[in-house]
Amino acid sequence: MEEKEKLTIVVFSGDLDRALAAFMLAMTGASMSMDVTMFFTFWGLNIIKKNEGGWKSKGIMRKMLGVINRGGSKRLTLSKFNFLGAGTWMMKQLMKDTKMPSVEEFIQMAKEMGVKMIACTTSCGVMGLPADAFRGEVMSMAGAAFFLGEARKSKTTLFI
Amino acid sequence: MEEKEKLTIVVFSGDLDRALAAFMLAMTGASMSMDVTMFFTFWGLNIIKKNEGGWKSKGIMRKMLGVINRGGSKRLTLSKFNFLGAGTWMMKQLMKDTKMPSVEEFIQMAKEMGVKMIACTTSCGVMGLPADAFRGEVMSMAGAAFFLGEARKSKTTLFI
Amino acid sequence: MEEKEKLTIVVFSGDLDRALAAFMLAMTGASMSMDVTMFFTFWGLNIIKKNEGGWKSKGIMRKMLGVINRGGSKRLTLSKFNFLGAGTWMMKQLMKDTKMPSVEEFIQMAKEMGVKMIACTTSCGVMGLPADAFRGEVMSMAGAAFFLGEARKSKTTLFI
Repeated sequence: MEEKEKLTIVVFSGDLDRALAAFMLAMTGASMSMDVTMFFTFWGLNIIKKNEGGWKSKGIMRKMLGVINRGGSKRLTLSKFNFLGAGTWMMKQLMKDTKMPSVEEFIQMAKEMGVKMIACTTSCGVMGLPADAFRGEVMSMAGAAFFLGEARKSKTTLFI
Repeated sequence: MEEKEKLTIVVFSGDLDRALAAFMLAMTGASMSMDVTMFFTFWGLNIIKKNEGGWKSKGIMRKMLGVINRGGSKRLTLSKFNFLGAGTWMMKQLMKDTKMPSVEEFIQMAKEMGVKMIACTTSCGVMGLPADAFRGEVMSMAGAAFFLGEARKSKTTLFI
Repeated sequence: MEEKEKLTIVVFSGDLDRALAAFMLAMTGASMSMDVTMFFTFWGLNIIKKNEGGWKSKGIMRKMLGVINRGGSKRLTLSKFNFLGAGTWMMKQLMKDTKMPSVEEFIQMAKEMGVKMIACTTSCGVMGLPADAFRGEVMSMAGAAFFLGEARKSKTTLFI
């Protein structure tokens, strides 16, 4: 069996605009029969956190971080022109208007298309995120060595 | 005929500093006989919009977006230390002082050197940008599949 | 002798979070026997500036820039939630708590592991940074052509 071409994406940013770009590329890669891995790290972990919350971080500083940096696919904001949410709301309207999926829908579609979504172990450790902080679509946690192992076998690797 | 090595750059950011980095690398690649493609998406589209304006977006929200996110190579600002334009002005002076081209000049030089500048169809759709919103140097519009097609044949692909 | 696989990282950002990601990947690559080059440009130069200052930039604008954009591994701040330093301080505590090295320590470790740290000549010219603005761990200055020469031989190239 011929091996599929690999596309690996580090999703470092938790901004709505960059999240959309990452999923757009991931989905396009999957639809072109590429083997796609998304490696979520740092602020990017916000994208794949459960929207409902409900997990527990240990220690007062990590609990505080969880409050100011709550995350969840529905809470992402634009990197520019957020305007206390008005700009982000507008962008979401424009997306609906052109039938572009929301981040929420992109995550579900990505899972269905076989895109592997991985949470960075190290960032999770620093930020105090347990495995149950993440949505069911997330496959597993893994470290930077796993990412580089994927990247070295990939035709294309992007840092978003 | 031997095929040229390819360099593909996604220009997602519309910040002056990142635009400069993108063109610097694109021009260097072209001068090293690489086949360079720049794929402008999201805020990056601002870089290649006509400075003069004059195109029309449909619908009130897209018209509003066109006002707050006007774009054009001469209106880009620094991602940091913009200081209501003072920092950006200063950076432009420092660039002139070291004979570094402006973004305006970089676009013209890139065209002359055969760099392919492409506008992302999907972002144009969401933001309501018609083909005539872009400068003459822009070759065409294309989607994420085109980009990944280029990327998979490229030695180096960068997301800026 | 078999040639080592190469990993090349452009460090464009001078944010603490992105600097950490860059070093984390560089160190992991080095520990996997990859030949790692970090190419620091624009704001990324802040990471490798001497913490003590003491160099001289020519001209009043470059001196001013050196004041507002002082740099040094110990002065980096988060791209988000800096909160006048409180957020950055908190992140550093969380890092210590999980035994994650500081940027300062990462630079020293990277040097010991043979990671090549290069400062971008062009950015140094624009910003007025002489060679003695940088720490001893920095190997040399080089331009975009050097970077692309490394990138075209690399398995993986990232723009951070």
